[in-house]
Amino acid sequence: MSDTAPTQRRARGGGGAARRAERSAVSFETARFIERNIPNFEVLNDEALEIIEYNAETVLQEVGVKFVNNPGALELWRAAGADVDDERVRIPRGLARQLCSTAPSVYTQHARNPERNVVVGGRNLVLAPVYGPPFVRDVDGGRRYATMADFNNFVKLGYMSKWLHHSGGTVCEPTDIPVNKRHLDMLFAHMTLSDKPFMGSVTEPSRAQDSVDMCGILFGEDFVQQNTVMTSLINVNSPMTFDDVMMGAMEVYAKNNQACILSPFIVGGAMAPVSVAGTLTQVLAEVLAGIAYNQLVRKGAPVIFGAFVASIDMNSGAPTFGTPEASLITYGAGQLARRMGLPYRSAGAFCGSKLPDAQAAYESANSLNMGLLGGVNFMLHACGWLEGGLVSSYEKFVMDADQLGILHGLAKGVGVTENDQAMDAIAEVGPGGHYLGCAHTQANFKNAFWRTNLLDYKPFETWDEEGARDTQALAAIKVRQMLDTYQKPAIDPAVEEALSAFVADRKASMPDAFI
Amino acid sequence: MSDTAPTQRRARGGGGAARRAERSAVSFETARFIERNIPNFEVLNDEALEIIEYNAETVLQEVGVKFVNNPGALELWRAAGADVDDERVRIPRGLARQLCSTAPSVYTQHARNPERNVVVGGRNLVLAPVYGPPFVRDVDGGRRYATMADFNNFVKLGYMSKWLHHSGGTVCEPTDIPVNKRHLDMLFAHMTLSDKPFMGSVTEPSRAQDSVDMCGILFGEDFVQQNTVMTSLINVNSPMTFDDVMMGAMEVYAKNNQACILSPFIVGGAMAPVSVAGTLTQVLAEVLAGIAYNQLVRKGAPVIFGAFVASIDMNSGAPTFGTPEASLITYGAGQLARRMGLPYRSAGAFCGSKLPDAQAAYESANSLNMGLLGGVNFMLHACGWLEGGLVSSYEKFVMDADQLGILHGLAKGVGVTENDQAMDAIAEVGPGGHYLGCAHTQANFKNAFWRTNLLDYKPFETWDEEGARDTQALAAIKVRQMLDTYQKPAIDPAVEEALSAFVADRKASMPDAFI
Repeated sequence: MSDTAPTQRRARGGGGAARRAERSAVSFETARFIERNIPNFEVLNDEALEIIEYNAETVLQEVGVKFVNNPGALELWRAAGADVDDERVRIPRGLARQLCSTAPSVYTQHARNPERNVVVGGRNLVLAPVYGPPFVRDVDGGRRYATMADFNNFVKLGYMSKWLHHSGGTVCEPTDIPVNKRHLDMLFAHMTLSDKPFMGSVTEPSRAQDSVDMCGILFGEDFVQQNTVMTSLINVNSPMTFDDVMMGAMEVYAKNNQACILSPFIVGGAMAPVSVAGTLTQVLAEVLAGIAYNQLVRKGAPVIFGAFVASIDMNSGAPTFGTPEASLITYGAGQLARRMGLPYRSAGAFCGSKLPDAQAAYESANSLNMGLLGGVNFMLHACGWLEGGLVSSYEKFVMDADQLGILHGLAKGVGVTENDQAMDAIAEVGPGGHYLGCAHTQANFKNAFWRTNLLDYKPFETWDEEGARDTQALAAIKVRQMLDTYQKPAIDPAVEEALSAFVADRKASMPDAFI
Repeated sequence: MSDTAPTQRRARGGGGAARRAERSAVSFETARFIERNIPNFEVLNDEALEIIEYNAETVLQEVGVKFVNNPGALELWRAAGADVDDERVRIPRGLARQLCSTAPSVYTQHARNPERNVVVGGRNLVLAPVYGPPFVRDVDGGRRYATMADFNNFVKLGYMSKWLHHSGGTVCEPTDIPVNKRHLDMLFAHMTLSDKPFMGSVTEPSRAQDSVDMCGILFGEDFVQQNTVMTSLINVNSPMTFDDVMMGAMEVYAKNNQACILSPFIVGGAMAPVSVAGTLTQVLAEVLAGIAYNQLVRKGAPVIFGAFVASIDMNSGAPTFGTPEASLITYGAGQLARRMGLPYRSAGAFCGSKLPDAQAAYESANSLNMGLLGGVNFMLHACGWLEGGLVSSYEKFVMDADQLGILHGLAKGVGVTENDQAMDAIAEVGPGGHYLGCAHTQANFKNAFWRTNLLDYKPFETWDEEGARDTQALAAIKVRQMLDTYQKPAIDPAVEEALSAFVADRKASMPDAFI
């Protein structure tokens, strides 16, 4: 099980303490981000694309968007040529798209371990874990409020997951830490318990600034100003509302050249029309306005076209996942993003199920497949999401993370080298033979097929004797194994101390707040 | 729950007994077969297609295929210009493809209820249930040998499943019936317990003939000769071997103008090379040879390009499902089939799991998605498959059947009528509003979103109070509800009596055989 077995890292140069830290540290194998060798699946024809793009501009010009409690934003919009009426911003046809054109189509997010850097955009897909749940669930403890201990555990699991490229952000809400201080502990965990890239805080502009400052300690201040070291999630308050908290955080990141995902948060039927074309129109209008504003703050700042999409169950009002309408919107929004030349964030291991059961897996597999085939470049929630995002599930985290290997395999496409063609094998085996022992199989079998690290392929009798365990039970064992064998990646003790001191100072400067 | 609630059918004309039967009969809603309004996903570029097609012809010409114990077939091949050496048939480049060109690209399979007719080919997708398992499983009874009572139950569930277009064939092996007689009971069940189209027996040429004869009773002999009323599964004994039993059955069907699926049975790494391109080459060679032979038997007989694809787990030897390699092969084979102008059979709710758990659902969802996006025209095993095809699962049957609704929704694609564009709704709601009550939502919500008939969307507290049931538990309830409310479709009692008499006569003519 190569993705969890720790291997000793060779000690490199550096001070004595750093060398000792390096010597005792281990590294877990992480796959390189996905570089697709398959086409994108596209559901909108040219007519549909033109109608939706035209309509989105009409919405911006005639209905407009709202920037709440943000005089600075209104001033920037007015100066750019928009019609600003109270907090409503009406954007003349073509202006938003023109402003968006300065955003880069590809950017590199640096990790403190350069082998873990990710390139976001193009034909790539970067996978990041679940974000945001206030609850966690595991087989033994059931469903309960998430704590900082859970948060640390999920960062560790993410670090050890071979197919996960990114450590994410709020892998769960550590509800035992004051709300105005938890971003500090969360960042400290990502920075010290993992060496994969991570996300910054967005719940207050000052917390975004803390994120930038902590990155200054970890990467060096100059490095941060010259490179992207965070990709952070800025949700639009759909429909068409940009609140000051999220925009304030985005302004901090843009000014510091850090990446944001500008992401309409859509539960179709509630925050957007019940039709696919109508939803795509609104998503595009919101992204155009949001990214244009991002570029008004700083031309050339890296930014991602985001689309979080669920449907609503009209009987219960619950958000639903893995549905055909969400897939169509996700495929379509990818086309719109590519026509803007922007990286695209969507999809995830979405599900509404309360348990990591068959429902969860159907819904998640539907969503993961659409993410890969729809040309998504950054997939948040790629593992661990449960119960409509209310719960981070330990078992589902490792179940989904195993499935992410399938996306890597599928993205490889079909090779046609002489070895791939296997004509010698077909001639050698001939009618009625079998390929198990032939030379081509012997030479290729080790890397020929994706292999699960979790699922059961045993003979029925063996499986039955071993307790007839279902996937959740197998995953629970895996979770325990991983957390028991986790070892921290090497970090310069001086850097860790400085981060720790920063956290302590900032915490001491504020009273606790729990709402 | 419109797909299970029985509705009274209006009585139509006919004799007194027929009228009485009609009056007491009910009908369950069945969706029309899928007509895709989305493109196919294609993984092979022109270079790869040309290499694979060239190589397949090379295999046919140089390696050849084997027709076992079938002098008649060898004679037909010799006359057609192939090089026949003992049982090995080497086919000159181009000959097989030319012979295949007389097969129709689309055909209609008739059901005894004409509303259930299916059109196989083009952009359509017809969904049929699991085929072949010797075992069944349900929550209460566990895993056990399948019986005729199970068989009847699965036919009933298939009949009542809204998104299933086809009644299938061996939905499980009724192991309590002698092996030489069970085809009679199976056909009788499909013909009387359902009014959807079905498959014929292929386990002996004489059983294929029985299937044709029973169809003569059900549809009328002339109708059968002039129309396709069965689509039957002819597996190739991969690699490149055509055995006399399967070919004998195919000959019967072709002579009677009935459709066959000519289907290589591939567990990659065992029956085909470990590479995707190599497997596609072999699949194409086998299909070319098999369909060419079908057309030699009867020019113009309807036939489907089949590809059953699994990978092998090189550690345990177990077949594996939902893997990226199987998906790439399935996508690629679809391209090869379309270039031959033939309907394509592949995919299904494949899984290796022993239980209808998360593993089963991940694997099945991966396979169902690839089937829809890969342009499959006939999908066998679309619901109910478990444990690598050893088990027909009651719960998974209804779980998968519910997911098939998603394929219908996704296939619709994106409409851009004025109503779809929803510009009035966006203007009406405006920034910061919500769409739940707006006029467009009110007018469209009923049909806007696919809705599950099984999965849980309830609030956590409600779900918890109701017993915190997982998908399997919900499905078990659904199975019981369906079997409790099943009602037989109307059938002319004289026809049913004649079928019953045929079965009794045929059974009386043979001793029991159990191997």
